Amino acid sequence: MYLGGLEAGDTNFVCAVGDADGNVLVRERIPTADPQTTMAQVIRFFENFKIVSIGVGTFGSIDLNKESATYGSITASPKRGWAHYPLFKSLSEAVGVPMGITTNGNAAALGELHKGAAQGLDGCLYMTVGTGISAGLIMENQFLHGLTHPEMGHILLRRHPKDAFQGLCPQHRDCLEGLASGPAIEARWGKKLTSLDDDHLAWSIEATYLAQALMHYALIISPKRIILGGAVMKQNQLFPLIRTQLQQLLAGSIDCAELKDQIDSYVVPPALGENAGIIGALILGRETYRQRSGKIA
Amino acid sequence: MYLGGLEAGDTNFVCAVGDADGNVLVRERIPTADPQTTMAQVIRFFENFKIVSIGVGTFGSIDLNKESATYGSITASPKRGWAHYPLFKSLSEAVGVPMGITTNGNAAALGELHKGAAQGLDGCLYMTVGTGISAGLIMENQFLHGLTHPEMGHILLRRHPKDAFQGLCPQHRDCLEGLASGPAIEARWGKKLTSLDDDHLAWSIEATYLAQALMHYALIISPKRIILGGAVMKQNQLFPLIRTQLQQLLAGSIDCAELKDQIDSYVVPPALGENAGIIGALILGRETYRQRSGKIA
Repeated sequence: MYLGGLEAGDTNFVCAVGDADGNVLVRERIPTADPQTTMAQVIRFFENFKIVSIGVGTFGSIDLNKESATYGSITASPKRGWAHYPLFKSLSEAVGVPMGITTNGNAAALGELHKGAAQGLDGCLYMTVGTGISAGLIMENQFLHGLTHPEMGHILLRRHPKDAFQGLCPQHRDCLEGLASGPAIEARWGKKLTSLDDDHLAWSIEATYLAQALMHYALIISPKRIILGGAVMKQNQLFPLIRTQLQQLLAGSIDCAELKDQIDSYVVPPALGENAGIIGALILGRETYRQRSGKIA
Repeated sequence: MYLGGLEAGDTNFVCAVGDADGNVLVRERIPTADPQTTMAQVIRFFENFKIVSIGVGTFGSIDLNKESATYGSITASPKRGWAHYPLFKSLSEAVGVPMGITTNGNAAALGELHKGAAQGLDGCLYMTVGTGISAGLIMENQFLHGLTHPEMGHILLRRHPKDAFQGLCPQHRDCLEGLASGPAIEARWGKKLTSLDDDHLAWSIEATYLAQALMHYALIISPKRIILGGAVMKQNQLFPLIRTQLQQLLAGSIDCAELKDQIDSYVVPPALGENAGIIGALILGRETYRQRSGKIA
């Protein structure tokens, strides 16, 4: 049994075919251009395989309300041509198999939950700190569907006293993404991330912001584990700084071992590296197939 | 068929017997003293009725992990004698019927969802702004169970430029609860809430803080509707101020009608007033009975 997976990202669309365990067997990387060009290549890729279902993690915002006439469509997007593009409808009609769709943050969380750093739990939060900041969330083995999907990267923070950087977010200026994304760090210091020393003030400021964000997530949704991925989190020195600041901010107000003496296994890097999203997409495809067919494959 | 409900609050334990529609038929208010005294009175109340189940909304923190040996026990509490009190075990053994337990915020959300301001939806957030600040949350007809239940009152905020008040929270000093609870407002201005004019700066500052909190909730969990109750929210002039500031803060970043032209029906007062919690407890009792018996009563 083969499964299809698609990770629709800002720069590339990663297409994959995998097995029922979520192992990637074939993979192709297609540049993100306009929808017609990109989707024609995506569909051509999947036409080569007999897949039973397909799972998609996509950039957004997307409409995930199953009652909606525009279910699975991109809603707003700064990318040319993608706003209102009916991704679910176009792809599922072209490929002709059951399809599951979610955000790429949620797909990455699903990948880490089944095959990575959150195995054995029933949920986790996966936060990407890279070009932008976004997160996916699974609680009790479900994605959360509210008015819309989480947009966790745009919360407001208290400023680090030594940080006068104005912020880069076009909508909120100095929200989390505006202050702590990769481009924000590079604009603040006028240097590439990789050229900042491990003990540079940049990392202490970055950890202050990420720890505040994690404090909010812990107080508001209390995820079972928090996984921090993306280009910025390759700076491993951030992890101990974030853990320490998170504990200081919480000041013992959440009475859980995970946030006290087990903090090192609560705030963790991804186990799947950059593959979390595509593996999660394959697993979403598998779960979609199981639900439709009633089969435990 | 009669149902039991208990709202275990800081000041009183409200006991009730109701019908399957969640109507309160008999009610008794018992002062919150030490566990032995209070619980003896609670148990004596319920012994007078033939109830099929009981639902409880309680102050906390409480252990809501069903796998845990201390399921339904108070974990931490500043109230004398209540820390580690096995509320679920004591009451369910004494009353001898199936029992459901959650936080009092979650019970109030359940009451408003079934009988109040969120009817017809599959979830809502209920926030109490009173002596403390706390919230309950229902998503897709479920309470969320993460590491622990939400503690949404302790998130950090940006200061209003005209506010130099130090904050009252013993753990975080100037978190949301430390700055925006009823006691915080009264300490900041040295006056009773009810003696502050409707156009006093107090309300503009209060709305700034509550709007920031709502922004975080909307970005992180995207509730279907937000209900604001508690003593502070009896100041009706707060609602339009909060709605306006919330829209300004979000700056259009969540592309949903509810947060744009429908904001007046998105951020709303409770429809059940102070009865949301006890009605929610009765409904929790009903749902517990239905699940246990397989009956749709």
